[in-house]
Amino acid sequence: MIVVLKAGTPKEEIERICQEIHKQNVIAEKSIGQHKVVLGLLGDTAALNVEHIQQISPFIEQVVRVDKPYKRASQEFRHGPSTVVVSTPNGNVAFGQEHPIVVVAGPCSVENEQMIIETAQQVKAAGAQFLRGGAYKPRTSPYAFQGHGESALGLLAQAREASGLGIITEVMDTADIEKVAAVADVLQVGARNMQNFSLLKKVGTTGKPILLKRGISATVEEWLMAAEYILAAGNPNVILCERGIRSFDRQYARNTLDLAVVPVLRSLTHLPIMVDPSHGTGKAEYVPPMCLAAIAAGADSLMVEVHPNPAKALSDGPQSLTPARFEHLMHDIAVVGKTFSRWVQPPATADQQPLIPAFASV
Amino acid sequence: MIVVLKAGTPKEEIERICQEIHKQNVIAEKSIGQHKVVLGLLGDTAALNVEHIQQISPFIEQVVRVDKPYKRASQEFRHGPSTVVVSTPNGNVAFGQEHPIVVVAGPCSVENEQMIIETAQQVKAAGAQFLRGGAYKPRTSPYAFQGHGESALGLLAQAREASGLGIITEVMDTADIEKVAAVADVLQVGARNMQNFSLLKKVGTTGKPILLKRGISATVEEWLMAAEYILAAGNPNVILCERGIRSFDRQYARNTLDLAVVPVLRSLTHLPIMVDPSHGTGKAEYVPPMCLAAIAAGADSLMVEVHPNPAKALSDGPQSLTPARFEHLMHDIAVVGKTFSRWVQPPATADQQPLIPAFASV
Amino acid sequence: MIVVLKAGTPKEEIERICQEIHKQNVIAEKSIGQHKVVLGLLGDTAALNVEHIQQISPFIEQVVRVDKPYKRASQEFRHGPSTVVVSTPNGNVAFGQEHPIVVVAGPCSVENEQMIIETAQQVKAAGAQFLRGGAYKPRTSPYAFQGHGESALGLLAQAREASGLGIITEVMDTADIEKVAAVADVLQVGARNMQNFSLLKKVGTTGKPILLKRGISATVEEWLMAAEYILAAGNPNVILCERGIRSFDRQYARNTLDLAVVPVLRSLTHLPIMVDPSHGTGKAEYVPPMCLAAIAAGADSLMVEVHPNPAKALSDGPQSLTPARFEHLMHDIAVVGKTFSRWVQPPATADQQPLIPAFASV
Amino acid sequence: MIVVLKAGTPKEEIERICQEIHKQNVIAEKSIGQHKVVLGLLGDTAALNVEHIQQISPFIEQVVRVDKPYKRASQEFRHGPSTVVVSTPNGNVAFGQEHPIVVVAGPCSVENEQMIIETAQQVKAAGAQFLRGGAYKPRTSPYAFQGHGESALGLLAQAREASGLGIITEVMDTADIEKVAAVADVLQVGARNMQNFSLLKKVGTTGKPILLKRGISATVEEWLMAAEYILAAGNPNVILCERGIRSFDRQYARNTLDLAVVPVLRSLTHLPIMVDPSHGTGKAEYVPPMCLAAIAAGADSLMVEVHPNPAKALSDGPQSLTPARFEHLMHDIAVVGKTFSRWVQPPATADQQPLIPAFASV
Repeated sequence: MIVVLKAGTPKEEIERICQEIHKQNVIAEKSIGQHKVVLGLLGDTAALNVEHIQQISPFIEQVVRVDKPYKRASQEFRHGPSTVVVSTPNGNVAFGQEHPIVVVAGPCSVENEQMIIETAQQVKAAGAQFLRGGAYKPRTSPYAFQGHGESALGLLAQAREASGLGIITEVMDTADIEKVAAVADVLQVGARNMQNFSLLKKVGTTGKPILLKRGISATVEEWLMAAEYILAAGNPNVILCERGIRSFDRQYARNTLDLAVVPVLRSLTHLPIMVDPSHGTGKAEYVPPMCLAAIAAGADSLMVEVHPNPAKALSDGPQSLTPARFEHLMHDIAVVGKTFSRWVQPPATADQQPLIPAFASV
Repeated sequence: MIVVLKAGTPKEEIERICQEIHKQNVIAEKSIGQHKVVLGLLGDTAALNVEHIQQISPFIEQVVRVDKPYKRASQEFRHGPSTVVVSTPNGNVAFGQEHPIVVVAGPCSVENEQMIIETAQQVKAAGAQFLRGGAYKPRTSPYAFQGHGESALGLLAQAREASGLGIITEVMDTADIEKVAAVADVLQVGARNMQNFSLLKKVGTTGKPILLKRGISATVEEWLMAAEYILAAGNPNVILCERGIRSFDRQYARNTLDLAVVPVLRSLTHLPIMVDPSHGTGKAEYVPPMCLAAIAAGADSLMVEVHPNPAKALSDGPQSLTPARFEHLMHDIAVVGKTFSRWVQPPATADQQPLIPAFASV
Repeated sequence: MIVVLKAGTPKEEIERICQEIHKQNVIAEKSIGQHKVVLGLLGDTAALNVEHIQQISPFIEQVVRVDKPYKRASQEFRHGPSTVVVSTPNGNVAFGQEHPIVVVAGPCSVENEQMIIETAQQVKAAGAQFLRGGAYKPRTSPYAFQGHGESALGLLAQAREASGLGIITEVMDTADIEKVAAVADVLQVGARNMQNFSLLKKVGTTGKPILLKRGISATVEEWLMAAEYILAAGNPNVILCERGIRSFDRQYARNTLDLAVVPVLRSLTHLPIMVDPSHGTGKAEYVPPMCLAAIAAGADSLMVEVHPNPAKALSDGPQSLTPARFEHLMHDIAVVGKTFSRWVQPPATADQQPLIPAFASV
Repeated sequence: MIVVLKAGTPKEEIERICQEIHKQNVIAEKSIGQHKVVLGLLGDTAALNVEHIQQISPFIEQVVRVDKPYKRASQEFRHGPSTVVVSTPNGNVAFGQEHPIVVVAGPCSVENEQMIIETAQQVKAAGAQFLRGGAYKPRTSPYAFQGHGESALGLLAQAREASGLGIITEVMDTADIEKVAAVADVLQVGARNMQNFSLLKKVGTTGKPILLKRGISATVEEWLMAAEYILAAGNPNVILCERGIRSFDRQYARNTLDLAVVPVLRSLTHLPIMVDPSHGTGKAEYVPPMCLAAIAAGADSLMVEVHPNPAKALSDGPQSLTPARFEHLMHDIAVVGKTFSRWVQPPATADQQPLIPAFASV
């Protein structure tokens, strides 16, 4: 950590600042410039708070952190990428840089028994390994459908049994964690709750893998610090999910899917990375190219909304693929996944059709 | 609500769309243009969901809401501005457009008995009507001070008794609402929880006034919809608090305080409006001019962080005023408040000094 | 300037980096931490380029500028605020922190002789000192009215003579500078051209005062660097104009007027500050409260769009005030300006009416 | 175009509004709702200005454009994608959806004869078809290297002759267009000048293909409207280039490369699409995965900064690839290009190595 003092800081104040810093169990080394004095802090500076240091004196112009504020989430914390293994009825599935692409698919919300079981079977047949589906739905309007709640959890359990797929579903309230964890193989913390620190701490004490969606305007550092809450609470199984950020333009897409964050995360953290182009773009027609681009960018997993009848969906219909369109997409994912050595299963359809004719028919 | 169909939508599809719309208990009136057909929906369209209508057909190009999605929060819902009256040991305090400016002051977090009681007495003496102070603190880092929690609530109760000030403090977890409400006169929902819908629903069922801070990248509509969650749950006592939004530039100020939202809110909603320049700017020296500008913009209330020794504060020191600086600011607030007919008490210091010499000495 | 090296940088590379830095005529002082080595650069570091230093070695993790990249625009460059004096037919007008508020008013574009002369006389009568009016208009669409160009310059000259007001008008093309400067008392560089460096350099070589509008997503540093282009070219007469930035929300206001930038600028630069709430908000009803808030925030000047018949304006009608509404606003500006000791002329109407009844009738 | 009137608009005002609209040579059809009246405008509404309509009456709540404001740039203007053919010494090169990926490579700025000629030969050998290189450089600081200007144009001409590559270089000032066009095969309009309308109009009158970079905070609509300026001036040869937008987070990447804009553009316009991951990310290590992701997203062309010695580059070194790294990338581009049927030449190295080992060695 580096402390830059304002021009003209009195000598006695410099001494006082150094003494205050020493009380934090680190050493301050002075570097005296023509106009300014700079202090380099040596020792366990990761435990220091930038704000605290800044408050020591009004003569402090800037405090620059050289070490990263996240530890357990950082690349340096491990040798090589981490793998999150999730046990599902169909066997263990591994998320991570050294494993094939994992596809999560399903409807925005669990609407009824028939739709969720049929969808599960269809996405399973097309090659997905997880079923997504909301029981509790965060909705902008109090007048919009809020999810079927507890009864939907029962339907997810049925769909799990019927398809063998793992279940990923969102938990919104600390009071619901136990109920949701009884059904889900992966607990999702949604974008709006990325900085709901009570929730992060409590899911950190469960044994479940956690899917941590990026907040709509969360910086990379804030996102990794949210992961750090879960890791620090003792749960090492965190998957990061990019799902679109808020930019200045929302005329044609619901959010701005930030694919460029994938290599940035790769350079900073060992955690597995998922991309959700359905929420990221908000339009079904943009989902297939963004899925393929996510693989090329280096993502480890994809989340795709699939609904048997998007036009009748209770939520998020415009961004949902039909099962037929999803099957088609899985073929393309297999082709591109193979190009990047991230696919082991045979493509959904075994023929040798090239990618583009399929892609072009979107 | 208006539904715009794509060029070339077949006649039969138009008919089908109209029939689907009729099932939602509204009428669709066709307006046939040279290239496009537009449907104007008549009836109780406020209950409709834009998404649902969009999903009826792939031939729907755009759905435009003409009525606002929030009802209880809207200007149209009431005749004139609403007043939120809060009972405090010193008597009732009224927030609203027809009342004097209400000043809320105090430290970011409750640190110990002495500091909170002394601060309460000092801000009271300077003219504040409420004490703010965090017991539960949302912090970006799991390694940062998280607030003293339940024990801090006890200290707030003591400060309330000692000063007669009302208490405003944040609740972060549905599990803590009861405990916090036992001490607080106003429950604060923080910026990071603005779309924590579980929390909004539950504070909506308490009888307490709610201070709803704007999320860091919440649109005005999302903010009013968050208020609508509380209002729809039966609690009409909501105060909106602008505390800075996230823009592309954070080099010199922590957030971008959006004072321009004040007249926008005034034209849309009857709810009282507070401005928090301490979080909004993140620097003590920017707080006084922004307080005065907030009054000129039309705000009904101000929240100001005050700490007996900002350099030693456990959180938010750089944006906290000293008690002396706060007393000085209260004088200026009184002068400007009088200019805008929003001040009834005598200025903190009764002399007739003009504003600027005081202001210039910041 | 501070150079932070990556953990594990080899000793020889550190030596090489120091030698490369010495070639730039500055000295690098090492500060050796537990994990990292930090170099503090001493000497005329303001001439260094952060990028260049970064490129010296892949082992360089971060380069932090301690000195500001702008010199002539910086607070440190002068003792006290600078004043920009503009000569007008009615005498000299001074812009700056130590002078009264200067009001610039007029239509978005010069439409015809009668309208511009009448508007000039009306805003003059109400107390404005400058007439604004576009001859060359930057328009998003090639199909929209682009301004009357050269012929409009002639009309501005007539309006100047008829009213005695100074003229502020925009120049968009280096080829037009001479023509525009022949009429204008202040040359405006518009928001879209804030980083049109050819234009900045060339207006920097004229003797004319320059009004530099902030780019719609320009950081404070980029804005001051744009000013630095003009100052470095030899023209010290630069006025900064905040006119709204682009945020994530444009539903109710055209831009987000960043009033909080006023105290930030005040702490960084000596240049005079203008605020334009007409472009900043895009709606006439938001303009008056934002004008008063701008004064309270510390602005030195206001720009207000006024049109004799906003409903018929060729551009920007929705954000233009009528002359009657403007006269009303000038009264309020005088009252608030007096409160802040920034007004010397008698209020437009000499009576002692308090502010609010006037304000409330917006 | 749809005009929504405020609740309670008087009948006579509705009539007046309809009459005003008729004067614009379109017809207004009324649709009367329970609370509001909506007017659907029929006729050549593309020529109307939203602003103008809005100004007709204060009773107009909202004006919604149903037709797009751009015509020549729109998908509907043509049947199928357009192709921009550029003649180079090595023959014609076609940019467009139906053609192979075109790669543009070279340094940020032209530094000297040897470096530009060597770089040209190296990127040519690796498979690039165009050389980029700045003669006139837009730089944030007036004290930074501004490009060698006219003399650099001469060096570009030499490099063109030596390598046979086409030349793409930026023009910043209307006064320089002729000079630059004498050397360049494609004229680049940079991000900062995307709304320099004087420049757009004038490059629109040249016969040269134009590369139009997206402004750092330009919406898709503003970008297409900027293209429309060039198209409307008579030049149909416009290539759009995404080069990163400004978001709230710049800690780890210089800009946010908006790959999701590629399918959005594809659905709106027939113009060819280029992606520039060098400026888009600002870091060399992020460039290769973003290039491959851009192909997968559907881009038609890539722009990559290559410098013989990035550590010594006069500008943009940190984001430049070495020639060796670029050659490696071209191999990967060929492999991925083939997967997407967008590559006809043999990969730079003819062997059958799979993609990832190469990719992993970044």
